[in-house]
Amino acid sequence: LPSMQTSSSKPCPCPSFKLREVASMYFTMIAVFLVILVVALQGSAPRGTYFPYKVPLDPQGLLELSWNVSYPEQAVYFQILNRDLKFGLLFGMSDRGEFENADLAVLWSDGHSSYFGDAWSDAKGHLHMDSQQDYQLLGAQSAPEGLYILFRRAFSTCDPKDYLIEDGTVHLIYGILEKPVHSLQAINISAIHRGLQRVQLLKPNITIPELPSNMKTMEITVPNVVIPSQETTYWCYMAELPDSFPKHHIVMYEPVITAGNEALVHHMEVFQCTAEFDSIPRYNGPCDSKMKPDQLNYCRHVLAAWAMGAQAFYYPEEAGLAFGGPGSSRYLRLEVHYHNPLVFKGRRDSSGIRLYYTASLRRYDAGIMELGLVYTPVMAVPPGEAAFVLTGYCTDKCTQRALPAAGIRIFASQLHTHLAGRKVVTVLSRDGRERQVVNADGHYSPHFQEIRMLKEVVAVFPGDELITACTYNTEDRSQVTVGGFGIMEEMCVNYVHYYPQTQLELCKSAVDPGYLHRYFNLVNRFNDEEVCTCPQVSVPQQFSSIPWNTFNRDVLKSLYSFAPISMHCNKSSAVRFPGEWEKQPLPSITKTLREPVPHCPPAPGPHPAVSVPLKLGKIKR
Amino acid sequence: LPSMQTSSSKPCPCPSFKLREVASMYFTMIAVFLVILVVALQGSAPRGTYFPYKVPLDPQGLLELSWNVSYPEQAVYFQILNRDLKFGLLFGMSDRGEFENADLAVLWSDGHSSYFGDAWSDAKGHLHMDSQQDYQLLGAQSAPEGLYILFRRAFSTCDPKDYLIEDGTVHLIYGILEKPVHSLQAINISAIHRGLQRVQLLKPNITIPELPSNMKTMEITVPNVVIPSQETTYWCYMAELPDSFPKHHIVMYEPVITAGNEALVHHMEVFQCTAEFDSIPRYNGPCDSKMKPDQLNYCRHVLAAWAMGAQAFYYPEEAGLAFGGPGSSRYLRLEVHYHNPLVFKGRRDSSGIRLYYTASLRRYDAGIMELGLVYTPVMAVPPGEAAFVLTGYCTDKCTQRALPAAGIRIFASQLHTHLAGRKVVTVLSRDGRERQVVNADGHYSPHFQEIRMLKEVVAVFPGDELITACTYNTEDRSQVTVGGFGIMEEMCVNYVHYYPQTQLELCKSAVDPGYLHRYFNLVNRFNDEEVCTCPQVSVPQQFSSIPWNTFNRDVLKSLYSFAPISMHCNKSSAVRFPGEWEKQPLPSITKTLREPVPHCPPAPGPHPAVSVPLKLGKIKR
Repeated sequence: LPSMQTSSSKPCPCPSFKLREVASMYFTMIAVFLVILVVALQGSAPRGTYFPYKVPLDPQGLLELSWNVSYPEQAVYFQILNRDLKFGLLFGMSDRGEFENADLAVLWSDGHSSYFGDAWSDAKGHLHMDSQQDYQLLGAQSAPEGLYILFRRAFSTCDPKDYLIEDGTVHLIYGILEKPVHSLQAINISAIHRGLQRVQLLKPNITIPELPSNMKTMEITVPNVVIPSQETTYWCYMAELPDSFPKHHIVMYEPVITAGNEALVHHMEVFQCTAEFDSIPRYNGPCDSKMKPDQLNYCRHVLAAWAMGAQAFYYPEEAGLAFGGPGSSRYLRLEVHYHNPLVFKGRRDSSGIRLYYTASLRRYDAGIMELGLVYTPVMAVPPGEAAFVLTGYCTDKCTQRALPAAGIRIFASQLHTHLAGRKVVTVLSRDGRERQVVNADGHYSPHFQEIRMLKEVVAVFPGDELITACTYNTEDRSQVTVGGFGIMEEMCVNYVHYYPQTQLELCKSAVDPGYLHRYFNLVNRFNDEEVCTCPQVSVPQQFSSIPWNTFNRDVLKSLYSFAPISMHCNKSSAVRFPGEWEKQPLPSITKTLREPVPHCPPAPGPHPAVSVPLKLGKIKR
Repeated sequence: LPSMQTSSSKPCPCPSFKLREVASMYFTMIAVFLVILVVALQGSAPRGTYFPYKVPLDPQGLLELSWNVSYPEQAVYFQILNRDLKFGLLFGMSDRGEFENADLAVLWSDGHSSYFGDAWSDAKGHLHMDSQQDYQLLGAQSAPEGLYILFRRAFSTCDPKDYLIEDGTVHLIYGILEKPVHSLQAINISAIHRGLQRVQLLKPNITIPELPSNMKTMEITVPNVVIPSQETTYWCYMAELPDSFPKHHIVMYEPVITAGNEALVHHMEVFQCTAEFDSIPRYNGPCDSKMKPDQLNYCRHVLAAWAMGAQAFYYPEEAGLAFGGPGSSRYLRLEVHYHNPLVFKGRRDSSGIRLYYTASLRRYDAGIMELGLVYTPVMAVPPGEAAFVLTGYCTDKCTQRALPAAGIRIFASQLHTHLAGRKVVTVLSRDGRERQVVNADGHYSPHFQEIRMLKEVVAVFPGDELITACTYNTEDRSQVTVGGFGIMEEMCVNYVHYYPQTQLELCKSAVDPGYLHRYFNLVNRFNDEEVCTCPQVSVPQQFSSIPWNTFNRDVLKSLYSFAPISMHCNKSSAVRFPGEWEKQPLPSITKTLREPVPHCPPAPGPHPAVSVPLKLGKIKR
């Protein structure tokens, strides 16, 4: 067990009336207090039970992160297991996983002594010691499997150099020091072994609902496949429910990961096929293979979804997800995303999802509803935009028509965009006033889509509005990005999981095509250029011919925030509820939700900018 | 001399290691420290010499504010003389002089004891004690003329409830308590005698230049006029220079205020008439009188300007303002704005401006240049806008053409808009990068226009750009506001005072009229409405017919930030420099100046939220 070096504490001075002395004494005492705290906690060994969440940080699994969230303390407790510690490691957070402007905890060794400190990297990636030490070292312990490091970080520190830990995706970054360094500043982070891992750090604090006694399990797993030796593979495997499988409720599910492949299995989804086809061919192979039967494209109804770092998913006590029975397809498609950047060869895998289901149906069927934008090219993002927002509406008229008087309860949400998506947020509005955030991810990544349980169940009543805004970055694109199904086209969707199930499957919008036509017209006339506005030319072609000057960009934004919308208030993707859904007015918002003001951590307050020296014994090489 | 009640100080505890105790001790000690500080400073009588700046706060002159600015401390020292103190007073600052969301220092008495505290008012005008006490009471002293109160306030406190003291106009507010109040919260600020006064609080710290020994003075004053018994009067008086008065340099000027009228004389300007007319009739009367000769409208060249709270104006040592000699009119127009809200009758006044001038010409003639927008209706502000920005440009091409290689030095500036103006800022840009703020007023008021000496002289070289942005509020208007000369039309001008004088008198811009025509066209087509775009209809008429929906507003903004400009790069208001000045590209800015981050006051740090009890002896009634 490594021991901690305590710095010698000054004798306690009796305070005089000079302010500077008081302040200096105050900080000295906090420093002493900090060291004592560290030493005190040093003795208590980190136990696995305290860290319910776990992800490997690197593809080899050398660094393993476990963590826990304390909402009363508004802080995260981290434990990193270093299976092969050399001369230290970097761990931290940044907006989208970059190593510039990042907030880092650094453990480093000069070959003799080891140090721990809270650091930050500037826009050029140079490291600096933070003036306020907010990664608080709680202990370090060596074990047969490696060295454990324990530390704590408040969600919000009020230090402008620190990352603000929020709900939704957090981009964790790590780096491994393979040579001794003489100081923090001497670390060249562009030259080290490093990477990023996305997680939902602030897991909701949910009470696990009581589970039925007659619960059965079913594992939908790939059949001992060889993981392809390429960075990215989407593997498709078709499974079947037994013949005449009656209606059941799925009440929970959890991942099944083949031991040793924890760092390779990135995410998994189980889809149910449409009941239109009597049979669907079997398939076991890459999803993008030419050999893949076309019918698999009709297997899009999500039954279960898991992504790295996620745990078991529980349905609320009153609801379950129906599967089986008449009108429900027997065919299930399992999709596994393998992320194999080190291009391991010949690894075998049998991962998948374990469904827990019961024949004792719960009170309500759970449903899934699509909010956001219709998949149509009329919603477009100009090229070269850093943060262009497209907004999809579920209007009061549609919820009035389609929801029961007692309302529905949204308990989970899966956000979805294609590659340009950077943020997604859905807000509930009532009587023109924003009331509640349904789900928000300010660091959304299209590479990390999971079904997230909400911290609080959101009740939605007839007449409420659900407004979903997606922010896109097209700085690396030279052509316009239009809405659509293609990977280079865009979507803005929030799949909300709710109960009781209603007929409303889709509550989405798009700009009125007539108004878009007027936009093409005015752009044409204003710019003296030839934008073909003849109706036989497609919308994507018209968008492609626009010269993207600031005026045409600005006016497109103005159009989207002014023009009436076409509503898709649908029972299924093709069947609308009766009513007039064209040229609908945009919901008007008279009062927006206030940005939450991050509050700074309570005592222990700011810590002086000193790195804490550690004795880690002999460091393994 | 009133004495101060000291609160009993606790015995000094020897610190233990518990953080809370340390923190509590820390605050206790600061409280003790504060009281001691107050008592210590109590003894030193406030002397007039420490407060070089002075304004009456109320029209009767019952409250007189003096102040000084300490740039090293980043703080303002205030002294208020209460000539007739009753049960206390409120003094503070707010965005535009309103009593809601204001930052206030309050002195109040319950009839027995008096208290002082830093307070704030909420959006409904209710008073609250501030959690951080940033108006620091330094002392109070009674004298035959009344009670003096001294206090100090840092420019920036980092308390969100506090006003940030910045350059430019500050709206001071005051209130007089005429009845005892039992607590701060009990003060009903809508029911008290109250008002506002505008001042430039942060006077620049300028070394007074050496003055010539042969300096003469000339007083341009109104001839013992009776101030009209109405709230607002602009009085015009024509003065004449002696026959054959040769060229002189004005090197300084200062106000001459008739004793007793300090609270009534709001601002004064001396204009020189155009040399086109051989003679101009004499006049002494209201400027808006029908009897006023038309020729007075040709007296617009500013020689001197003063507003309440301003002191003497000094030209830089190397420069003077030329007047007299050939090509210079003998006729001067003095304009005095009397603000007489209490409608005093029969007050006589002989106020004006004293010019200090010399026949020993200085090295350079000073010049005045107009920056900003051309007076044309093509620049318009829609109705109902809270903060609509119009921007005028002085382009690199014009400064290249018109300025000497050695550049010019701007040393003073007078900002000008009509009634809707709320902010004005001019920024110097070089090679597409903003370099320096020439002059900025974030609380600009059209009712408070003075020539302000700049803190730093700004050097402008050929190829530099000067960008002037004005922010307008038209929330109380139902019709569009177009650019023009009328009081309900708008201007955006910065008159910069500089040397050496050049031929460039006007460096202003307006949007290209052809692009504005395209805007009318597209609005017409987009909105299915009849906006008459026939050229025989005037621009104001076309603007008037626009339905002001969000789209038409947004697109007008987009137009102004995109369309090319027509430049007025003029020797005089009618004569342009040779060159192509139509359809010029907008200057492109690749790097903007960073907003200054307000830094919080150094020690003494935050003060606990306690009101300081005072003994003021027997309060006069």
